[in-house]
Amino acid sequence: MGEYLARQRRRVDECLKRYLPSETEVPAQVHQAMHYSVFAGGKRFRPILALATAEALGDEERVMDFACALEMLHTYSLIHDDLPAMDNDDFRRGRPTCHKRFGEAVAILAGNALMARAFWLLARPRNEAATEACRLELIHRLCEAIGTPRGVIAGQVVDLLTQGKPYTAEELRFIHACKTAALIEISVAGAAFLCGAEVAVEEQCRKFGRKIGLAFQIVDDILDETGSEQEVGKTLGKDRVQKKATYPALFGLESSRREAERLVDEAVAGLEPLGPRAYRLVQLARFVASRRH
Amino acid sequence: MGEYLARQRRRVDECLKRYLPSETEVPAQVHQAMHYSVFAGGKRFRPILALATAEALGDEERVMDFACALEMLHTYSLIHDDLPAMDNDDFRRGRPTCHKRFGEAVAILAGNALMARAFWLLARPRNEAATEACRLELIHRLCEAIGTPRGVIAGQVVDLLTQGKPYTAEELRFIHACKTAALIEISVAGAAFLCGAEVAVEEQCRKFGRKIGLAFQIVDDILDETGSEQEVGKTLGKDRVQKKATYPALFGLESSRREAERLVDEAVAGLEPLGPRAYRLVQLARFVASRRH
Repeated sequence: MGEYLARQRRRVDECLKRYLPSETEVPAQVHQAMHYSVFAGGKRFRPILALATAEALGDEERVMDFACALEMLHTYSLIHDDLPAMDNDDFRRGRPTCHKRFGEAVAILAGNALMARAFWLLARPRNEAATEACRLELIHRLCEAIGTPRGVIAGQVVDLLTQGKPYTAEELRFIHACKTAALIEISVAGAAFLCGAEVAVEEQCRKFGRKIGLAFQIVDDILDETGSEQEVGKTLGKDRVQKKATYPALFGLESSRREAERLVDEAVAGLEPLGPRAYRLVQLARFVASRRH
Repeated sequence: MGEYLARQRRRVDECLKRYLPSETEVPAQVHQAMHYSVFAGGKRFRPILALATAEALGDEERVMDFACALEMLHTYSLIHDDLPAMDNDDFRRGRPTCHKRFGEAVAILAGNALMARAFWLLARPRNEAATEACRLELIHRLCEAIGTPRGVIAGQVVDLLTQGKPYTAEELRFIHACKTAALIEISVAGAAFLCGAEVAVEEQCRKFGRKIGLAFQIVDDILDETGSEQEVGKTLGKDRVQKKATYPALFGLESSRREAERLVDEAVAGLEPLGPRAYRLVQLARFVASRRH
């Protein structure tokens, strides 16, 4: 599994390098900031999920652009999340965050530029299997996944506004579903869609993505309480300090662990109809439950 | 002309209202911030340009989504531009800026949500004349116009990094071309493209857009020096205080006025092949040179 992840990461990284403006291109500062954050050592979990879905259903090459767009969008959201006005984080993956290194203005603009680049990539003219109509619909769905009222941005808003205030289990689930699960869900469902999967199969993929997405954020919350700073690469314990809405805070650590495992088990069980083709997806789901960074 | 502008503004506003999530939808704060900034009394110059181009070449209805997407993108860039880390403006169009009213975090997220919403709108499934391939290419080009290395974001980066430093005429032109002209150019060229204009006509439209876009920013720079705060609706004289790269600072007011007029004259002359159909575009070009806010 470790070797598979490393191989896929390299493939994704090579493509990402090709699809970003070079670091020397004017205005270099913003391109350096984009590279700095995109190549900060991320796991490439979302692109690898998309590739694994394509491996199960069709052809990996067909989703490579989409995989890279997912990582650009993920990185944009991390850069903005770390800003002083948001989570105010100085470190990510063991290095200074984008705004600590390049200043706030360039960090905001680098995030914006990554969002624009993701759609640029998905909309670029090319001769290939996925039809234009299909890519257009994918862009539409991706915008829902990252936007409001039910995407990443909506989740971030509620995440911020509940800080230091009482919150309900419903609000917590909204945050997790939007902030984290929406993009992971579309990573799987979007890849299935691009591969021309039947509606029923796409729906199985969507549910799988949703469940491991929810598990992913619960594990994130747990790691913030119990992880090793060296392994996670950022300042931990911040959720508690900032009085964030988290699973462990509301339900306790043990119950959070059980919930993450239950979600992963359910996700894996839901892939049964796909048979052995879903091998890598199952591995990735197990990885979510066991990850330490 | 005043009545035409008011009528078009109302049409654009009605559509914008339909295409944004409602203000009451959860999470309401971000949707309120989006409405607050989108409906802050903007001129709708870019959407009206797109509609006027469509009126000259084809069918206005065909570009209405595009027109609204342009305004969402323009508003997102204004919200972010006003942030403390950027231009640090407290007022825009006579009202507190988005971050003054909703806080920085929500303002950043509202800007991001508007960008996502613009592409959501352009990519939404619909049965209409412009083919999917055409809309996909439009998204690609629009991303170039708002992104890096030659779009709005690139212009903002150089604008910020030249503040308080010596700058060349070349850098100033880069800022104007990217920060302002790129989006105005695509407003005209994109509308021509959506209307299925011949390549030569689209190119005439592109050049027209570029020229009035450059003139627009020169007039903006002039108004910051000489305008009435009440008419412009924001704190003026800030360019000089922040030591920004501007036309009047580098070339003087008189020379800047002449340059804006020259650009508008050239833009209008370039539309001659289109004949009387281009009537509204000519009026809009003249409006750029004469505007007082």
